[in-house]
Amino acid sequence: MKPMGPIPPEFAAQQGELTIAGRSARDWIAEREGPLFVYDPAIVAARVARFRAAFPSIDLHYAIKANPFPPLLAAMAEMVDGFDVASAGELAKVRGLGRPVSFAGPGKRDAELTAALTAGITINLESEGEAERALSIAAGLGVTPRLAVRVNPDVELRGSGMKMGGRPSPFGIDAGRVPALVRHLVAARADWRGFHIYAGSQALDPQAIIDTQAATVALAARLAEEAGQAPPLVNLGGGFGIPYFAGDVSLDLERVGVALEATLAERPAILKDSRFAIELGRWLVAEAGVYLANVVDIKESGGEQFLILDGGLNHQLAASGNFGTVVRRNYPLALARAMGAAVSGTVSVVGPLCTPLDRLGDRVGLPPARIGDVVAIFLAGAYGATASPSAFLGHGPADEVLGSGPPE
Amino acid sequence: MKPMGPIPPEFAAQQGELTIAGRSARDWIAEREGPLFVYDPAIVAARVARFRAAFPSIDLHYAIKANPFPPLLAAMAEMVDGFDVASAGELAKVRGLGRPVSFAGPGKRDAELTAALTAGITINLESEGEAERALSIAAGLGVTPRLAVRVNPDVELRGSGMKMGGRPSPFGIDAGRVPALVRHLVAARADWRGFHIYAGSQALDPQAIIDTQAATVALAARLAEEAGQAPPLVNLGGGFGIPYFAGDVSLDLERVGVALEATLAERPAILKDSRFAIELGRWLVAEAGVYLANVVDIKESGGEQFLILDGGLNHQLAASGNFGTVVRRNYPLALARAMGAAVSGTVSVVGPLCTPLDRLGDRVGLPPARIGDVVAIFLAGAYGATASPSAFLGHGPADEVLGSGPPE
Repeated sequence: MKPMGPIPPEFAAQQGELTIAGRSARDWIAEREGPLFVYDPAIVAARVARFRAAFPSIDLHYAIKANPFPPLLAAMAEMVDGFDVASAGELAKVRGLGRPVSFAGPGKRDAELTAALTAGITINLESEGEAERALSIAAGLGVTPRLAVRVNPDVELRGSGMKMGGRPSPFGIDAGRVPALVRHLVAARADWRGFHIYAGSQALDPQAIIDTQAATVALAARLAEEAGQAPPLVNLGGGFGIPYFAGDVSLDLERVGVALEATLAERPAILKDSRFAIELGRWLVAEAGVYLANVVDIKESGGEQFLILDGGLNHQLAASGNFGTVVRRNYPLALARAMGAAVSGTVSVVGPLCTPLDRLGDRVGLPPARIGDVVAIFLAGAYGATASPSAFLGHGPADEVLGSGPPE
Repeated sequence: MKPMGPIPPEFAAQQGELTIAGRSARDWIAEREGPLFVYDPAIVAARVARFRAAFPSIDLHYAIKANPFPPLLAAMAEMVDGFDVASAGELAKVRGLGRPVSFAGPGKRDAELTAALTAGITINLESEGEAERALSIAAGLGVTPRLAVRVNPDVELRGSGMKMGGRPSPFGIDAGRVPALVRHLVAARADWRGFHIYAGSQALDPQAIIDTQAATVALAARLAEEAGQAPPLVNLGGGFGIPYFAGDVSLDLERVGVALEATLAERPAILKDSRFAIELGRWLVAEAGVYLANVVDIKESGGEQFLILDGGLNHQLAASGNFGTVVRRNYPLALARAMGAAVSGTVSVVGPLCTPLDRLGDRVGLPPARIGDVVAIFLAGAYGATASPSAFLGHGPADEVLGSGPPE
């Protein structure tokens, strides 16, 4: 038997039928023809509340790439201070939600810059060339561009799942070249919004995040001093991880918050009027989502038992271990009608795709299952539906649904 | 500088502007707003002709999971003897194309079995439970079900990229239980169509394929003898690989053909009236497809140069190394206007997604590039557009286009 990752606390203590957002998993899926993602806004709201308590003076941005499901975005508009988008397509999804928007990402096309400049949102510049294109398009439009500079920091986030700083990178502008660019933007009469500094993602070690945030604040101050400009906003990035796999431990958010507040209390004078933001995607929404699929067949082969679901990596690629992971490990999953029940044996849980890659649970321990059962795969709220090849093998996309509104 | 895989022969010898299906890459992409996949049916036709010459007595099936683009399917209907599908969605795509169809894949839902039985196509049964469901649904419909048995062979394809036999598997029924199932199907008055035996995929070693095919024929004969039934058709699977990476050598198809014809010439008596089929996806279409994307930005970071394209792993996940590969290696790619030109330096080619996973060429050698250039990524005809998370980060799907018709 191989271990699974930890079930999120809101679900781990349940007994019997799994309930998501006040409704049983069986009821959720019975209305559908196939698998679906259910997102519980109360869990997102709980994460937001925890963030607010830990970081009282910091703005909270939601990076919608983690989950751009429109009803979820509408719910989050009430909870966060801004949205971060990474394409014109994402920008279109947050228009009209009444929150400030910033747009980061390499390779912004002219049409995307035009859309962003017309909408008056902040563009996080990824290169000097992009800066020139943005200035030129803004001049043509007759608007004052709102431009921040994304910095490729000379620090990296230790222990992060994906490093995005401290090395040659397609993201941001190398720190050493940033002051000159800021001076140039100000001279060109752009509305310079500040810095965006993102050093990594999916980190669970609080000390690594604390050290990175302290280094990021120091870097922002140094760059501002060299540019001779105080940044209105410093986006400190995110990088807060969630536990996916056996042995992972939840991030001690409160410890990070105490340390960052202390860092900011003693920040250099040039940052004294700056606002600070943290940009989170995964940490806010991953644990709020559950992917539900039906057991279509149960078979035995070579002494092993297989549960075959009506959805797999076509809907939830990351859980199959084929997206950004080197060694395949099991996400937490459960038989939805038997939460807390004793494990009766070892089974492998696979999707319907005609490829050995489509394995969602490799020799996991589950209670006895039957055809028609529902399997719940947790941690499906981020990088699930939109980060999966939904057209692969022609099974069609999964449905998505948001549970009833967040408590106020 | 890191190596790239080999450019397919139809493109490797070109000089100057890349031509695909008789038209320049620049002209193909100039009509579009963003990246696109171009498929050359003449290359597919050349692969089919090569197969026909090497395997004169074997039926050729196309496994549409590799590329289900409808115009390509229409073109292939003229070239192959049958289509293999893996879902009701795929079945819908080949209806009306006038070729026999078979349907394999674990986890077939009742609605899918109903669609297949109503259409009169062959169902490759993946478990005894599925057999019972198919028989029951057929009885309800008042039709005679056309049923083949997918065998989980007790041999595996050595050296294959993905092993699908010789071990506990969600695919097929363990060989030892197959004769009893065949007898049961015949007793239930199903139209038993034979065996489907698929031992692996993406193999480049001809001797491994030769050995596997010989073992597969022997296994089919043994199972038929034990069942007391001669199979009308034996689908030998596929598994023919293509060279993706540096050091890969093209499969010696002709050697495999000679060996299989010799094996079949001496096949056991119970198979003397059986037809044999080989089911190919990747080998037929991968080299016929080129993914084209535009260079949106060129930037320097930490002494490295980055070409930033307007499409990446959202369109061509496999080329980013995030789909079924453990170690990331470079697919072949080229600057489309400078085929055959001297390499001037090392660049990394990345997509527009705000994630370090979105890297299509890692420190590859290319001629000097400028913004507005077109980059061609080869081997994009199989497991490209539909096997990628096209909604990820909201950039939208790539276009697809089939070049002018196959030569006759």
